[in-house]
Amino acid sequence: MTIKISIDCMGGDHGPSVTIPAAISFINREPDAELILVGLEDVIRAELKKHHAESQPRLFILHASEQVTMDDPLEVALRRKKDSSMRVAIEQVKEGRSHACVSAGNTAALMAVSRYVLKTMAGVDRPAICSILPNQKDGPTYMLDLGANVDCEPHHLHQFAIMGSVLVQAMEGIERPTIGLLNVGTEDIKGNEVVKLTAKLLQADHERGALNFYGNVEGNDIFKGTTDIVVCDGFVGNVTLKAIEGLARFLKGVLTSEFKRNPLTMLGALIARSALRRISNRINPSRYNGASLLGLRGLVLKSHGGAEADAFEWALRRAYHAAKNDVQEHLSTMIAELMPREPEVAQEPTATITG
Amino acid sequence: MTIKISIDCMGGDHGPSVTIPAAISFINREPDAELILVGLEDVIRAELKKHHAESQPRLFILHASEQVTMDDPLEVALRRKKDSSMRVAIEQVKEGRSHACVSAGNTAALMAVSRYVLKTMAGVDRPAICSILPNQKDGPTYMLDLGANVDCEPHHLHQFAIMGSVLVQAMEGIERPTIGLLNVGTEDIKGNEVVKLTAKLLQADHERGALNFYGNVEGNDIFKGTTDIVVCDGFVGNVTLKAIEGLARFLKGVLTSEFKRNPLTMLGALIARSALRRISNRINPSRYNGASLLGLRGLVLKSHGGAEADAFEWALRRAYHAAKNDVQEHLSTMIAELMPREPEVAQEPTATITG
Repeated sequence: MTIKISIDCMGGDHGPSVTIPAAISFINREPDAELILVGLEDVIRAELKKHHAESQPRLFILHASEQVTMDDPLEVALRRKKDSSMRVAIEQVKEGRSHACVSAGNTAALMAVSRYVLKTMAGVDRPAICSILPNQKDGPTYMLDLGANVDCEPHHLHQFAIMGSVLVQAMEGIERPTIGLLNVGTEDIKGNEVVKLTAKLLQADHERGALNFYGNVEGNDIFKGTTDIVVCDGFVGNVTLKAIEGLARFLKGVLTSEFKRNPLTMLGALIARSALRRISNRINPSRYNGASLLGLRGLVLKSHGGAEADAFEWALRRAYHAAKNDVQEHLSTMIAELMPREPEVAQEPTATITG
Repeated sequence: MTIKISIDCMGGDHGPSVTIPAAISFINREPDAELILVGLEDVIRAELKKHHAESQPRLFILHASEQVTMDDPLEVALRRKKDSSMRVAIEQVKEGRSHACVSAGNTAALMAVSRYVLKTMAGVDRPAICSILPNQKDGPTYMLDLGANVDCEPHHLHQFAIMGSVLVQAMEGIERPTIGLLNVGTEDIKGNEVVKLTAKLLQADHERGALNFYGNVEGNDIFKGTTDIVVCDGFVGNVTLKAIEGLARFLKGVLTSEFKRNPLTMLGALIARSALRRISNRINPSRYNGASLLGLRGLVLKSHGGAEADAFEWALRRAYHAAKNDVQEHLSTMIAELMPREPEVAQEPTATITG
């Protein structure tokens, strides 16, 4: 089966100068993939030409006359820019012309437009953002929600756990992935009211064999790899993720400046460059680029806004594997089985969406 | 003036084998300090002897027959172990025999016993835990609350901001320290309800010149050093802090294992060892050990439970400087000036205390 991915080529801090090289590199690796490049036709064509890829037969250009900027209010992204590259790319999924959409645009806008165009999956109250982080076991830790929902009730966190579990099953082939509930301590008595009530819901699922609930985990468990999935509300998830990114950037700066300090340290770095390269690879945030917007009636992946071409390509690769592993199908099936029936909520995006 | 500090010598993962060497090293550096070593007299005496410090005239032993373990429920720490080294060390502050108390014991127990023995400062609803983190500007970022209060109302966060501001004034000599409110974005519309309402309280203080409120900050601003103080509730603070510690430990592991991989990388590390030493110093968590329990009628500092002697000594140093800079006096004065008058709450510690 050919896997088709639509790309919002104008999104992110760099736009086509990043998204097009990433698309070209990706298409050359994956012979069963096709890409729909959405955005300003002239600009995309010029960028393809620059990289001698104008005649690559599995790259298709789809013109969209507008683009959502990082500063656009949700209102503008949703109601005014109806021909934005972001929206048109998402519409390809809706209309069955692509299996997944990837954008590096504004997270809040991407979530809002995705909810508006694709609608929320039956049984899901609120879509969530799920990303992966490296851990000491050299595997990924899946974490959600990372910013879509800043005010959560226990049943929202419960749904995040179910969606995370299905995603890990499909993407990693783990039959019963372990779920940790992010908390300030591991004992049952720890935490705020929302977390304590969520633990009860997850424990009940665990007891009837529906989910593999490990229990409470703490911030450091993300990197220990204690559980496959770490569940939290979007406020905690977003702050934690950004703090982690901030620390990684800070440490990288310290490493670089100290090794460049004098000829001796530079010589040491030169001799040990294989170690430095492997360190850089293992903690390289590019490898972990590509967050899934879970709970929509279609696959949408969000790349980091500042992603360079190699990082954006990782997001494409993640979208490709999600489509190939039928993540969307698994989600529908499992949610229908696992999710307690609740009245469906309005599809209009709310002001609580963030990024 | 002689600065007197009481130490809970039995607390932490290592007890006297860490606290006593740290005390000896500290006392040899600070000629105007005196230390009260609280715990099992025999054990402390033996440890002093081991380090040939039994006759140091500024070290005083105070026997306490019990100790609070890491697993003791609050109930036990509070009501049963009335002669614990932790409690006796705190009582020294209460009775004016020491200026500050330092313990590496269980955070929840330390906060509960401190609240019980010392009581909360007039005008403060809930004491908070404040620690410092390194930033790109080579200065410290003060962050609170780090786990004492997991369910917070806007007026609690408001009080944390006031206490943090006074602490930075006294400890760093910054006249109008900047205050950032931890959020999922910098715009006013971002965040959950509690954070949005807190921003209004802080903005009002800013407008009347009482506090220097910068506005919302994000997780990465902690390490950018965007503001002197970062305010958040204890749930977010605790999770973020532990995630940061987890990442730092993970990266340290990666660095060590990659440099030890083969003779060439080991040679590189040897040649560049000055760089590695400086890196290790700059990100050394020991330097940042010693969190302040703010809002009590006395100075109490919490050392990391797993702290080694050099880290525990940093906590002693921080207690010494806090006492020398009259932090407690400044807090009382400024809180009386700044804090909106509210009915005092019961002094009994509640189940929301954590660590």
